Amino acid sequence: MTTGIEAYLHTHTRLSDEEIARIALAATPRSLRRNELLLQEGQICRHKAFVVKGLLRNFGVVADGSEHILQFSPEDTWTLDAESYDRSTPSAFNIAAIEPSELLLWTRPVFNRLLEEIPELHALSLQLISRNGYNSRQRLFAALSATPEEKYNGFVRDCPDLVSRLPLHMIAAYLGISLKTLTRIRHAQWQQR
Amino acid sequence: MTTGIEAYLHTHTRLSDEEIARIALAATPRSLRRNELLLQEGQICRHKAFVVKGLLRNFGVVADGSEHILQFSPEDTWTLDAESYDRSTPSAFNIAAIEPSELLLWTRPVFNRLLEEIPELHALSLQLISRNGYNSRQRLFAALSATPEEKYNGFVRDCPDLVSRLPLHMIAAYLGISLKTLTRIRHAQWQQR
Repeated sequence: MTTGIEAYLHTHTRLSDEEIARIALAATPRSLRRNELLLQEGQICRHKAFVVKGLLRNFGVVADGSEHILQFSPEDTWTLDAESYDRSTPSAFNIAAIEPSELLLWTRPVFNRLLEEIPELHALSLQLISRNGYNSRQRLFAALSATPEEKYNGFVRDCPDLVSRLPLHMIAAYLGISLKTLTRIRHAQWQQR
Repeated sequence: MTTGIEAYLHTHTRLSDEEIARIALAATPRSLRRNELLLQEGQICRHKAFVVKGLLRNFGVVADGSEHILQFSPEDTWTLDAESYDRSTPSAFNIAAIEPSELLLWTRPVFNRLLEEIPELHALSLQLISRNGYNSRQRLFAALSATPEEKYNGFVRDCPDLVSRLPLHMIAAYLGISLKTLTRIRHAQWQQR
């Protein structure tokens, strides 16, 4: 179960085997069934989670009951609600498993101790925070400026592996377009082949 | 000219007078005329900028020539293209003055030296990076989920000071709605008063 994080840290950092083992051993494993929530709106996000296996989504629900997806988190990525985690405030968002998933969780005190003890983990953590910032900006710009076709084509280009793993209504909820529009786009592209 | 940053740092940090003076003295002042560019798409963003006076916008332009605004930067805020600055890659966005503006600029080597020498500036910097991340997420969620009316009302609630300083077409370009829709919303609200 800890093998996933060890391979990931070997690939993305120059941490020693001893440091990697220390990070892995500080985590608590957690399994989620399909549709099970890791974080519910209104709760405080108390863990940083690494996805060893499976696929999750971060999403919000608005007054009319519709769901809007901020992020998908497949294997070898991290998930949390950063604002709720950093500030210990109730989260405005939910995190749920789309597929049966295996996670590793670190509480904030445990992870902060690791950050203090292991400078290279600190550097990785800053890199991830910055990269999330760049991604959110890119996604915001696409949301403001792109046509539905451009949004869908961008998603297929950037996340080809996810397209076949996700139900269409979730792709639509991620792109901010209606299921009807998404179906029309895919149908038109299919006919052009 | 440096007074703005000194007052800002006194309010937002517990830096000593000596440290604050060191940060202020390391900056280069720059004035921008209305519509003058601080950063042009394709250039590398080489400075962190603090807005002492005035108002700027970060925006991108798409193939049809339309402009979409990521961020407004009034007095006492920072502006840069973080991805271009961090990675020394050509920026996908522009930064321009909406009003005549007075800025302080730090190059990356200069700012990085200050970050190393002054841990509390480092802490402030991380806080700002995190807060930008939260804001981008909130804005992304609004872009995905909110109606045009909700977007406009949210902007009036969160940035009341900016509403009267901005031309309508820029508010529309920031909210991701058409000028026609924005005009209709404002007209309807005016009639309800």
